[in-house]
Amino acid sequence: MTRANLLKKACAVALTFMACSLNTTTSVKAADAGTIGVRSGILDFVDDPWSKPQGHGDEAARFLPDGLLVIKDGIVKECGPYDATISKYPGLDVTTLKNRIVVPGFVDGHIHFPQTRVLGAYGEQLLPWLLEWVFPEEMKYKDPAYAKVGINNFFDNLLANGTTTVQDYGTSFESAIGEYFDEADRRHMRVICGLSGLDRNAPEGMCLTPQAFYDGSKRLIEKYHGKGRNLYCIVPRFAYGDSDEMLSACGKLHKEFPDCWINTHVSENPTETRNAAAEHHCKDYLGCYEKYGMVGPKFTAGHGVWLSNDEFERLHKAGAAISFCPNSNTFLGSGYFRLGKATDPAAPVRLTFGTDMGGGNSFSMINVLNQAYKIGMCNNTLMDGSVDPSKKNDAEGERNKLNAMRAFYSATLGGARGLYLEDKIGNFNPGKEADFVVLDWNGGPMATKWHQTLIVKEGDSPKNIDQAAKLLFGVMAVGDDRAVDETWVYGKRLYKRGAATPVAAVETKHENN
Amino acid sequence: MTRANLLKKACAVALTFMACSLNTTTSVKAADAGTIGVRSGILDFVDDPWSKPQGHGDEAARFLPDGLLVIKDGIVKECGPYDATISKYPGLDVTTLKNRIVVPGFVDGHIHFPQTRVLGAYGEQLLPWLLEWVFPEEMKYKDPAYAKVGINNFFDNLLANGTTTVQDYGTSFESAIGEYFDEADRRHMRVICGLSGLDRNAPEGMCLTPQAFYDGSKRLIEKYHGKGRNLYCIVPRFAYGDSDEMLSACGKLHKEFPDCWINTHVSENPTETRNAAAEHHCKDYLGCYEKYGMVGPKFTAGHGVWLSNDEFERLHKAGAAISFCPNSNTFLGSGYFRLGKATDPAAPVRLTFGTDMGGGNSFSMINVLNQAYKIGMCNNTLMDGSVDPSKKNDAEGERNKLNAMRAFYSATLGGARGLYLEDKIGNFNPGKEADFVVLDWNGGPMATKWHQTLIVKEGDSPKNIDQAAKLLFGVMAVGDDRAVDETWVYGKRLYKRGAATPVAAVETKHENN
Repeated sequence: MTRANLLKKACAVALTFMACSLNTTTSVKAADAGTIGVRSGILDFVDDPWSKPQGHGDEAARFLPDGLLVIKDGIVKECGPYDATISKYPGLDVTTLKNRIVVPGFVDGHIHFPQTRVLGAYGEQLLPWLLEWVFPEEMKYKDPAYAKVGINNFFDNLLANGTTTVQDYGTSFESAIGEYFDEADRRHMRVICGLSGLDRNAPEGMCLTPQAFYDGSKRLIEKYHGKGRNLYCIVPRFAYGDSDEMLSACGKLHKEFPDCWINTHVSENPTETRNAAAEHHCKDYLGCYEKYGMVGPKFTAGHGVWLSNDEFERLHKAGAAISFCPNSNTFLGSGYFRLGKATDPAAPVRLTFGTDMGGGNSFSMINVLNQAYKIGMCNNTLMDGSVDPSKKNDAEGERNKLNAMRAFYSATLGGARGLYLEDKIGNFNPGKEADFVVLDWNGGPMATKWHQTLIVKEGDSPKNIDQAAKLLFGVMAVGDDRAVDETWVYGKRLYKRGAATPVAAVETKHENN
Repeated sequence: MTRANLLKKACAVALTFMACSLNTTTSVKAADAGTIGVRSGILDFVDDPWSKPQGHGDEAARFLPDGLLVIKDGIVKECGPYDATISKYPGLDVTTLKNRIVVPGFVDGHIHFPQTRVLGAYGEQLLPWLLEWVFPEEMKYKDPAYAKVGINNFFDNLLANGTTTVQDYGTSFESAIGEYFDEADRRHMRVICGLSGLDRNAPEGMCLTPQAFYDGSKRLIEKYHGKGRNLYCIVPRFAYGDSDEMLSACGKLHKEFPDCWINTHVSENPTETRNAAAEHHCKDYLGCYEKYGMVGPKFTAGHGVWLSNDEFERLHKAGAAISFCPNSNTFLGSGYFRLGKATDPAAPVRLTFGTDMGGGNSFSMINVLNQAYKIGMCNNTLMDGSVDPSKKNDAEGERNKLNAMRAFYSATLGGARGLYLEDKIGNFNPGKEADFVVLDWNGGPMATKWHQTLIVKEGDSPKNIDQAAKLLFGVMAVGDDRAVDETWVYGKRLYKRGAATPVAAVETKHENN
């Protein structure tokens, strides 16, 4: 090799190194068109940490201190240690993300898009809050122009918070649901949404007749369900807001479209819980949905704060899910969900975690994990026998404690399982859709950075799963949405923290297909 | 007037307008050396909103849509409507802050500086959490070099969160307490701190003999109490960690230095509460401090989650205070403080709100208000009779609800009253020390801005107290520490959001006096 060539080679190495250290893409010629690589610390889950013996939750996770995620046309092709994997893909376009942990995109099991603007509104328990704040705002979505602005705003917020999949309650206006699916499709996001069925205890403008609801739902299912990444849920909004006829229309749709999801609420607030069961002449709240044959796989009931042990057992047997929404449950004063009960290995109930934005006052699933931890810790204390010895239950108490493994599982693979989407999303197994979040463990308030140096020195990265888990706990306990550095959907970066223009607006100019 | 003069005048007006709209200081010649003005929306309190009839809390507040705060040598000279006030101060240096609300600096009634790095550490209730995380970190502060780094970090965090006054529990090392007071003095901050008395149920390195504690406290009191803005608190850390002899030493110091504060913990965790009373042979936790004559004015007990009605009554009669720390109470699973009980107008207990950083996982008093709201809402539901009719108490339930007026009062004048500092800080009455926070109501996660346009249009400012209160509720419910745009201490700006260098580091290069 001549001197000139040696110099050239040294420069090339130096330039590659500089590019890597700046978290940029090294755009060498791609070996295979449409195939890209992302090099970073990578963490995902293959199992439920609650199913492992206490202290062994990390056996449900995989951590690659220096991993390579290979993606072809939006789908995970392979995920492995960088050194062992890169050799199979000569010339691969690799984006290197230093001092970051890549985790699967967050799954928000419970959200209401038309409440984007009224999230965190003051002062009432569930029922008056709906009447005073929520329904007046939702009614604006009858206007397609307003709906378009709100829906764009909503999706921008999801991406800024690392959320790539949601199950949404929609609203009463068919045109807004159409716009929602169109916008999700423009961003190639995996979402579940549907027309919201409500015909009583709500303002007239929010109500649909059961027949209008049935017809509208059917049209939307036929147009959108299974098209691109869109999925449809039948939405009996909540039994207290639904007549027998409305629930019956939902049951009928479920029979005709058994492939669709069902998304509703159960036992959120004590007054609502009592009223719903009484009005439907059922022994409990869950019974209102069972009566119409809806409680089974792909059925999610939001909240479940006031469920009886018997209802937990029936949800378990049916393979149905609860969505745990700790921010909402406290913001609306609904109560403290029994996480340790739902995760009982003898009778586990499928779970998603949800923001319930706007009853929840934040779009951030990281913030949800923070509040879930706090509720779990209080439940833990209430079950240690120190307040009431008759309530002592160490096993359930312990399961309330949300360590980092349980937390990030719940926001990723756990959420996917809760939604029966584990064949499509939730981890980086080959064939999964490549949705992921790039976490900066120093993101958050000023206090975060020094805190995290207890785990790894400034500039260093985690070398093992124990360090990664501790950093992730710091993200959820001290950090917040600022930890989300980038959000990638279907193999494309749609959000970059601090970017002048939302990346989504720039990169989603493709055709609606 | 000639044409040239007219042009000059027009330019001057235009330049003034530009300067204002950029939130900069118009540096015309000062009428009076050392006197400055701050023009902005200004909100403060003159009374306790809980003392007003329901819905009339805003009668306890003052709001100036376009106000002028005049400050001379760190002290408020006047605060009034801009138009009516500016004419009295020709040539005043005015800093104009557009689209902002200036409120008094936040008072954090309960904080632990040596826990800065371990805030939000995983997984235990109070007693094991102290042993596993807190004491090992605190012991590092024996080393003056480490203490210096930690203390600087601590004060930077306070300022970034708008906190200008704290009551701190200190630690067991006299040199660290000295450094704390020196640093507070360099920043001219009004703080209360003291040597922490602990002699059992803690690692040996954290313990002091009662005599060593007495001697160290005395030296520190003589050196620091009342020097500059520094104030001293005698710290029986918590009865469970203190022998009879240690509590007796605290009582002795209290007799010799009746002007000093007393800062301790009470009834935080149910196990701790039972143990403390039992070990001191008292009928309840508060009794441990009463036994040594400490419970009176300027006595603060942190938490009070598990206080009996009788203890509330005794605290009220004694004129003593509780510090309510909702983040800590949930993060450590301690329980749900009865805010509505403490604010009973028939027997109110003085209150501060506190972060309890590091048992609380945030430095932000805004975040504290957010969590206090949530706990209050849950308490409210539990008292409406829907869960247990025997617990129905609408009046106490209602007082748990933390609207914006109650919240920002609690973080400002309420905190000052809780600490018996209302003659010095807490609002903008003439003669008060000029500590304040400049709030950007759009600060916070991406969702904040559109939410706030429900109250005032983009670019507009609140025109009345109702709008100001609603924006402030948005700050606490949807926003976070990012709402703190600037923090001023004793008439000087010590923090500016997004500034490359902490302003404090630049502007505090004056002599330690």
